[in-house]
This record gives sequence, C-alpha cells and structure tokens, in this order.
Amino acid sequence: MPSGDVPDIVVGRLPIYLRALAHMTAAGQEITSSHELGQKLGISSAQIRKDLSHFGEFGKQGTGYRISHLQEQIKRILKVDREWEVALIGVGDLGHAVARYNGFKNRGFSIGLLFDNDPAKIGTRIGDLEVLDVARLKDLLMEQKIKVVMIATPASEAQKVADTCVEAGVTAILNYAPISLTVPDGVHVQHLDPVAYLQRMTYYL
Amino acid sequence: MPSGDVPDIVVGRLPIYLRALAHMTAAGQEITSSHELGQKLGISSAQIRKDLSHFGEFGKQGTGYRISHLQEQIKRILKVDREWEVALIGVGDLGHAVARYNGFKNRGFSIGLLFDNDPAKIGTRIGDLEVLDVARLKDLLMEQKIKVVMIATPASEAQKVADTCVEAGVTAILNYAPISLTVPDGVHVQHLDPVAYLQRMTYYL
Repeated sequence: MPSGDVPDIVVGRLPIYLRALAHMTAAGQEITSSHELGQKLGISSAQIRKDLSHFGEFGKQGTGYRISHLQEQIKRILKVDREWEVALIGVGDLGHAVARYNGFKNRGFSIGLLFDNDPAKIGTRIGDLEVLDVARLKDLLMEQKIKVVMIATPASEAQKVADTCVEAGVTAILNYAPISLTVPDGVHVQHLDPVAYLQRMTYYL
Repeated sequence: MPSGDVPDIVVGRLPIYLRALAHMTAAGQEITSSHELGQKLGISSAQIRKDLSHFGEFGKQGTGYRISHLQEQIKRILKVDREWEVALIGVGDLGHAVARYNGFKNRGFSIGLLFDNDPAKIGTRIGDLEVLDVARLKDLLMEQKIKVVMIATPASEAQKVADTCVEAGVTAILNYAPISLTVPDGVHVQHLDPVAYLQRMTYYL
C-alpha cells in the first residue's frame, strides 16, 4: 500500500466513509454504492471512487460495495482494525466529558490513562480509571508504549504537555486546547478547537 | 472582498492565524512576520503571505505585520468582529462541558440558548442559562434569529435536530455528534468527531 502517495485530504475522508458505513451496518444494510454514500456525505460519487482507488478494488462496477468488506478494508488501511490505548491529559470539564465518552470503543481506541496536575483531582476516579499525577506522564507513557494521546489542558499548559509526550515516544496528538502545538517532524497533530470551526463558517454568513 | 473566489482551505486557516495572533498579543507582542507565524504554525511563510493576499495588503515588505491591525482585519473578514449568539442542543456530558467552556467569548461567540429533550434536565441551569425543552427549538431560534448552532446530541437525534434548525433559518452548524449531517445548499456544517481525527492520524503510525 503506497501510503506516502496518498494525499492527506483523501486520508481525512476515510474516517468519514467508515463512520457512514458503520451507521448503515447498524441499520441492517449490507450493500451500498458510491452514489448512495456520496449522497449521504455531500461528496460526489466520482470523488469517493477515486479516493478508494488509491487503496485497491473494493467493489464491482454495477453491483456496489459489500459494506462489511469495505468497512474491514478501511479499518485495516487506517490501522483501526486493532485497539489503540490512548492517554488523556487534563480532566477539567471538557476532559472529564471526553473521558466518559463511550464513542471510542469499537472505533479503534480505548482511553487507558488519565492525567491531571490538580491535587484535588489526582487519585479520584472517572469510570474505571484513576486520575494520575501528570508528573508521572513521561514514565507511564514510555512504560505502556502509548503512541496516541489527547490533550485537554488549558492552552497555557498544552505545549509543555505535548513536549513531554513527544519525548516519551508519542506520535499522534489530538489537541483540544485552543493553541497550535509545535511538534517535530514525524509527530501528527490534529486540533479540535470549536471556535476555529465556528469562525470558518461565519466567514460565509 | 471576493469571498466566492477564496478557496475554503484558505478560509479554514484564517482562524488558526487569528488564534496565534491572539496568543502573541496576550504575551505583549506587537509585531510579527509571516516567517515567525509560519514557524509557530508549521506552515510556510510563503503560504501565509499568499493566503492573506486574497484579502488585501496587511504588512509592508521587511517590516512585518502590526499584530493588532492584522487581528482586526481577520476578525472582520471572518465576521467575528461582532458577537454571534449561538444555541447549543444537547447537554449531556459533552454538551455540558461545551456550555461551561469559557473560550467562546472574545472570539466572536456567546452561547445564548441551551436545549435538551430530557425532562430531568429541562428547567435546570448551567451557569446563567436555563435548559429549555427542545420542543421549543424551532420557535425560539426563529424568534431570536439564531444563525449558528452547536449540536451535541446522540448521533441518533442529530439529523432530526439539524433539520429543525435549518427550518428555523440556521445556516451554520457545528456538529459534535458522530454522524455526517445532510443539509441543503447554503447551510454550512463542520463536524467535530474526535475519533475521525484520531483515525486520520493512526493511518500514518
């Protein structure tokens, strides 16, 4: 699979396809087409076929896609045919909600470690997990070979936390803090700043 | 301003520039350059200059940008030189955290209305706001001329809620529910599904 050749914007659409396929499966559907998928997602069917063609042949002309097969293949491509143990740093209001979110399981992720720097929170539990002292972050990430983290600290703490995670070998960071993180080459960051997404829309209003 | 001509990907970077400029201002800085901004954001300085050139001249060659001026101009371009009153639908764990998030103010948004369909939540307060019955959603959105909403309901409810919002005249939807919403032309949607962003990164691991 020539991963280096696939544009990142194509990679970014695969999770959207996978999510739509999962909803179809949940509704009992077994077959779909690029046309139907495109209608649901507001993407042209030609674009969907072109995106998928980067990775091989997943359907036959005229018969559509077998949903379970396409799901399996996209999961394999995105490497979520396994479960990634994720650490979450920062369990304020938002982090607490993220920790309790039950949408990670079955989609390739499981929160295995929670950290905070607030003595009032350290040692408390959220669901099955104990909130750990962020002073132990680096050691525990290394010990458990964590590659994926989510940062939900205040903006003022996020870069420092990210640096520690990178030192510990983390290569994927989902950042909820409203600040752009600087990371070395080879480390991936996605930012989930709701205001940035709102502003992107008000431009058009 | 030729808004129709500006690629959406350029529009999407403006909030990122604005956020970085706000951090510089908060740190007491008054002047920056496309080079410095680029280093902070992992974007080339040429790209930044090209992005900004769609909207006019904001700096002089060799002297850099006056941060306060550039902030004002980008705020005006993104139409966040005013405050948009936003409705939030769904105040479960995540919606509750969003409702309490204090990062909207000063960036162009203010949550003015909260809705839920759970009788146990309707009538309770989060901060200064009362949680309202979602049955009143359409009427109240129209009455208060709300154009921007955030949806934090379960996936199963999100499309129905979005349809109601669109009927009421909403044209921008930030969707936290893990499902792709179908909306008519002219309505803007941004999706904030954390798992989709995680999956986009694991592809590269």
